Amino acid sequence: MRDDVDMVDVPLDRVRRYLEPGPIVLVSSACEGERDIMTLGWHTVMAFSPSLVGCVISSGNHSFELVRRSGTCVINLPTTALTAEVIGIGNSSGTELDKFDYFGLTASPATAVEAPRIAECHAHFECRLVDDSLVDRHDFFIWEVVAAQARATPAYPETLHYTGDGVFMVAGEIIDRRSQFLLQML
Amino acid sequence: MRDDVDMVDVPLDRVRRYLEPGPIVLVSSACEGERDIMTLGWHTVMAFSPSLVGCVISSGNHSFELVRRSGTCVINLPTTALTAEVIGIGNSSGTELDKFDYFGLTASPATAVEAPRIAECHAHFECRLVDDSLVDRHDFFIWEVVAAQARATPAYPETLHYTGDGVFMVAGEIIDRRSQFLLQML
Repeated sequence: MRDDVDMVDVPLDRVRRYLEPGPIVLVSSACEGERDIMTLGWHTVMAFSPSLVGCVISSGNHSFELVRRSGTCVINLPTTALTAEVIGIGNSSGTELDKFDYFGLTASPATAVEAPRIAECHAHFECRLVDDSLVDRHDFFIWEVVAAQARATPAYPETLHYTGDGVFMVAGEIIDRRSQFLLQML
Repeated sequence: MRDDVDMVDVPLDRVRRYLEPGPIVLVSSACEGERDIMTLGWHTVMAFSPSLVGCVISSGNHSFELVRRSGTCVINLPTTALTAEVIGIGNSSGTELDKFDYFGLTASPATAVEAPRIAECHAHFECRLVDDSLVDRHDFFIWEVVAAQARATPAYPETLHYTGDGVFMVAGEIIDRRSQFLLQML
């Protein structure tokens, strides 16, 4: 595992900086002695402050009942260094194996929620369930990020963006157009 | 404008191929003689079939009432060729100008909805509102994509992914890990 010395707190209204470009994330959860990780690509930032993120977590996943019953999860941001783990976690079920042990990932205690963080990831967003009104109909969970941490470097991590069919787009060139934005639109 | 000769239909359950990596999109709408475009980054794929996409469209946007009243929109996918337009549309309000005219974009009739497509974009997803239960609370619209078109080339368009602060990440390297996926997970 990488240790936590190069982690800094992320202001909660800046979570979009990490999640908005649509990276593949790893959702970790725990409830009553069980724990799990799932690979997830269906999420959207929903508000700055409070910091809300909506996720589709299919009821077919072992994680579904863990996040629903505990009302918490951690959204972890992996980089290309974890590509094999991202795929392996997506390919397997928590009913059959403990994914932390099997994939050699470190469950690190979160600061504000019961669910564990995945220490090897670039950033961690600790979440509490604030709106479950669309869970039955659409498997859609609305989370409030209540604590967030990210590594200070690299500023733009090489995230994975799934495009279907086993193909990922990797985060590419950074273009800065700050000078063209109205201040209130940044 | 680019013309439509290199456009092909996209199977509706493959819309994720374009939207899941979290690209910045342009949402076009029309209602009772008014039309508008907005820049949007807060969206998520929600289901394959029916093809559902959820979007946060803030009630502060001129587009909000147009999409709510008409119950339709088109989600258009721009590439880096339209970076200046993406920023300009995000910086301006449809209450003050017609964004099609002002930005020199072509409103092309959609095939299945009242809202116009933006001809210059790489792909068009024509949408009908299917669930507005979270509009009042979270400005969250759930759309069913009822028709979809994309240019046949390039296979991986150079999309824009907003990271806040006027900075975009551009779609980068493509890595194919199909051989590592379980077939049912593709």
